Amino acid sequence: MVPNQEKPMNGAQSLFKSLVDAGITTCFANPGTSEMQLVYEIGITDAVRPVLCLQEDVVTGAADGYGRMKGAPAFTLLHVACGFANGIAMVHNAARANTPVVNVVGTNASYHQANYPEHELVNGRVSDLARAVSHWCGEARSASHLGELGAAAAALAKTGKVCTIVAPTNCHWDEANPPPTPPSSSGRPQVAPEAIARAAGMLSNGKKTGLVLGNLALQGEALECAGRVAARTGAVLLAETFPSRYLARGEGRPPVDPIPYEFEIGVKFLEPFEQLVFVGSGLPVATFAYKNKPTLKSPPGCDLFAMASADEDLETALRALAEASGATGTPALQPRTPASPPSGELTAAAIGQTLCSLLPENAILVDEAATNGPPIYAATKGARAHDYLNPVTGGAIGGGPPMALGAAIACPDRKVVLLQADGSGMYTVQALWSMAREKADVIIIVLKNDAYAILGLELARVRERETNAKMKSMLDLGKPTLGWVEIATGLGVPATRVGTAEEFHQRFEAALGAKGPQLIECQVSTPKEWFALEEHVHRTR
Amino acid sequence: MVPNQEKPMNGAQSLFKSLVDAGITTCFANPGTSEMQLVYEIGITDAVRPVLCLQEDVVTGAADGYGRMKGAPAFTLLHVACGFANGIAMVHNAARANTPVVNVVGTNASYHQANYPEHELVNGRVSDLARAVSHWCGEARSASHLGELGAAAAALAKTGKVCTIVAPTNCHWDEANPPPTPPSSSGRPQVAPEAIARAAGMLSNGKKTGLVLGNLALQGEALECAGRVAARTGAVLLAETFPSRYLARGEGRPPVDPIPYEFEIGVKFLEPFEQLVFVGSGLPVATFAYKNKPTLKSPPGCDLFAMASADEDLETALRALAEASGATGTPALQPRTPASPPSGELTAAAIGQTLCSLLPENAILVDEAATNGPPIYAATKGARAHDYLNPVTGGAIGGGPPMALGAAIACPDRKVVLLQADGSGMYTVQALWSMAREKADVIIIVLKNDAYAILGLELARVRERETNAKMKSMLDLGKPTLGWVEIATGLGVPATRVGTAEEFHQRFEAALGAKGPQLIECQVSTPKEWFALEEHVHRTR
Repeated sequence: MVPNQEKPMNGAQSLFKSLVDAGITTCFANPGTSEMQLVYEIGITDAVRPVLCLQEDVVTGAADGYGRMKGAPAFTLLHVACGFANGIAMVHNAARANTPVVNVVGTNASYHQANYPEHELVNGRVSDLARAVSHWCGEARSASHLGELGAAAAALAKTGKVCTIVAPTNCHWDEANPPPTPPSSSGRPQVAPEAIARAAGMLSNGKKTGLVLGNLALQGEALECAGRVAARTGAVLLAETFPSRYLARGEGRPPVDPIPYEFEIGVKFLEPFEQLVFVGSGLPVATFAYKNKPTLKSPPGCDLFAMASADEDLETALRALAEASGATGTPALQPRTPASPPSGELTAAAIGQTLCSLLPENAILVDEAATNGPPIYAATKGARAHDYLNPVTGGAIGGGPPMALGAAIACPDRKVVLLQADGSGMYTVQALWSMAREKADVIIIVLKNDAYAILGLELARVRERETNAKMKSMLDLGKPTLGWVEIATGLGVPATRVGTAEEFHQRFEAALGAKGPQLIECQVSTPKEWFALEEHVHRTR
Repeated sequence: MVPNQEKPMNGAQSLFKSLVDAGITTCFANPGTSEMQLVYEIGITDAVRPVLCLQEDVVTGAADGYGRMKGAPAFTLLHVACGFANGIAMVHNAARANTPVVNVVGTNASYHQANYPEHELVNGRVSDLARAVSHWCGEARSASHLGELGAAAAALAKTGKVCTIVAPTNCHWDEANPPPTPPSSSGRPQVAPEAIARAAGMLSNGKKTGLVLGNLALQGEALECAGRVAARTGAVLLAETFPSRYLARGEGRPPVDPIPYEFEIGVKFLEPFEQLVFVGSGLPVATFAYKNKPTLKSPPGCDLFAMASADEDLETALRALAEASGATGTPALQPRTPASPPSGELTAAAIGQTLCSLLPENAILVDEAATNGPPIYAATKGARAHDYLNPVTGGAIGGGPPMALGAAIACPDRKVVLLQADGSGMYTVQALWSMAREKADVIIIVLKNDAYAILGLELARVRERETNAKMKSMLDLGKPTLGWVEIATGLGVPATRVGTAEEFHQRFEAALGAKGPQLIECQVSTPKEWFALEEHVHRTR
């Protein structure tokens, strides 16, 4: 047999080399027949760690979590149109977060697609799906083209883009040229000095100002500069509702408050502001339009200025803004707030109290707690320094478990804590198996309220009569109640059920002392304020 | 308060009325904010039974199972682009099976989409996704249009089409006209007499002939006519690889053999045939193209004639074909084959033997057994009369659990038996919860071989060296092993694990005596022939 190195390269090898040359070291995969040549390439080399996931939203959600923490892409391996479709929701969350991701979707040989085998769509092609949800999509026309697409996708992904390569099998097995040299990054575009000057002007005009940060403005030196600007000008640091990438918070970080998700709460929160300056964040639009309601959460007449988009160089821009504002002093930093162990009823607030007390320094906190999230967020303000991830950037739910998996793979030396609502968690429960397999160091806290609680509020906006049992049956998860301990056990993750705040505290403390995934099932009610709000929106609909 | 009937109708009411007027009585749902007005309409009336599912592939896969058994559509309720995307795989299986389905996808208010709230895609719209995988897609331009789309979709769906309605929330709440009267069905197009004459001519030319049936040709009078033709002409009754809709089989039905899925086995199976006549089935194309292999399973030179497509009136066509062939006699019918209880090792064949012995008359057998399917199919040839459903019509896996759920909802008085491979079953494991909730009368037999076994074969086609541990790690489900009993218990379904053929037989018999879902976890090896084939394809690659 002729040794491999003397044989010409095939397309799969060219693609694989292009990704490895670009520095990619991790692949989240749910492969099928059309990806076998890449499975082989991954298998015969040491360059890439494959992580098998049992459903594709786990694959793509893990790539999102990985990319957010690493600041660099993993690649995914997905099987034809339906395998890609199964992962679209989390591709979309990643795209709306500007997370670096490279997706590789195998398809049937290009010459066979017109024969209409089973996987071909009745009215479209894989690339129709891929293009709609990716920043960039390339479909290989030849084996050599596959390597070119790999190099282009990896380079573009690094700038915070989701790039999808559609790879017909004949392009895998045909002979190919080696991939081109990875293009050097052109860097992010700079924010125009005029925009910075205008923002600086606004910050000194005496009006009540919010500086709304998003994406990379929420971490590192960018955040510190923003903190200096706030300290100097009196502006309040806000964040986009679902911080994209991650938000550095806790002890020693400039405190930032995300604009609340829920419409009426968000409107109230922004009411005091006369002007808002956006740095890496979009405008505060309502997630949903409601009949006869405005679509912006900011008050009428509030001056909105988008100084910089998430695509631009936010750190340099914020440094310049600090300079233009004369903000040379130290920013106000969040002090550590002491928290004693909670007692009594197990509530979201009690869980937050435990986290504030015990969350280790440099932990990664993933929040898909839904209606139970805000009390925990509030209670952990003064916890030790940690990074906060929110998967819901594209509105799609179920991102929590895969995001925690991906973050743990990206940062094996950091403890990941996942706050997981039960309804959302069920979309991607398969992620627990990959956590067990990979010994991912994740503590999963399931906040079990046996309902899609958020929808009770949304129904209250449109119903003319009281909610009846039949309506409730479409929002309720209690019949039968979900046994998370049993489900986790079946998926290989050790799990316990706790009933009181004390039990939770004890269990969480014990979990911190161990490595590998552990699940704690917490029966918690939907916070009372939520039902009060439900009444309010129903009355004022 | 003014009573409802004096108020003008809104768009949600017009849409709901259009679906109810068309006879739709069941809704599989995973609603979100943009579907709340339909949740309300379903809730205040008795017309429609809502079935909540915890992930969207369960919603759409259940609608596929329901539509196949009912011959009429249910409607689905899905939330925005990502909720629809989560269900695309099973929408696609349904579309490739020509199952009647109406999907309703809520979206943000049309006037709010350009504001780019979270759910908007970075590079496309809901309808881009919906159009690619549906036979028909309509997006409402107004509230009245919503009712018009409902009437059109329901009528078209009945002819075996997947129809998707994209419904912006402002079209739900705006005032609307009542929906138009449901259009009367125009019936299916008739097969041209010339085509029937040509098929009849082929059937009498003395060549070895296969009559390949698909879709509605596999049931009822159509199948009986085909059986008469076979008895008269000596043609062999074959079926498309994954029978769309369902296949009536067992005692008293004309026996039909589907063309095997696996390429080499399929080629061997079709080798004897000099001509194939297709009635409601596509040509026998390989599911995947392989390097230097043909893309058709039929032998070179075999005469292929597509007499009728799945869209046409197959029953009338087969009646005419029987007449043209002088096939007035009785068809050869499958006799009941006695089967004694199996003993010893728990294998797929042993499970088939139990089913042959115990499967009750009129049962519904859903087959997503993957590599363990063929031995069970072979062993149940002479079981009592039953209907056979195969979800993999579009190649997407995970259809088994939702299809069994949907079939059980459609046919509450029939026992449903699901043969479920472990890898596929994990994609849509959430279906178990809906089965528990709805008391669906399903026996779930999990065929647990701890692997995506089919992929070992596919890897063997492309690998140049032996499979190593790293490659295996991308195909293997054994680390950790999946605890189906625990998972099912957590989802509310009683479950047991059996280790021998005797235990399985006993457990299955007991399950037949009870109502409601029950799961039996069976540790079975991948059949030995499969590994022999793996060796063969590797050698001849």
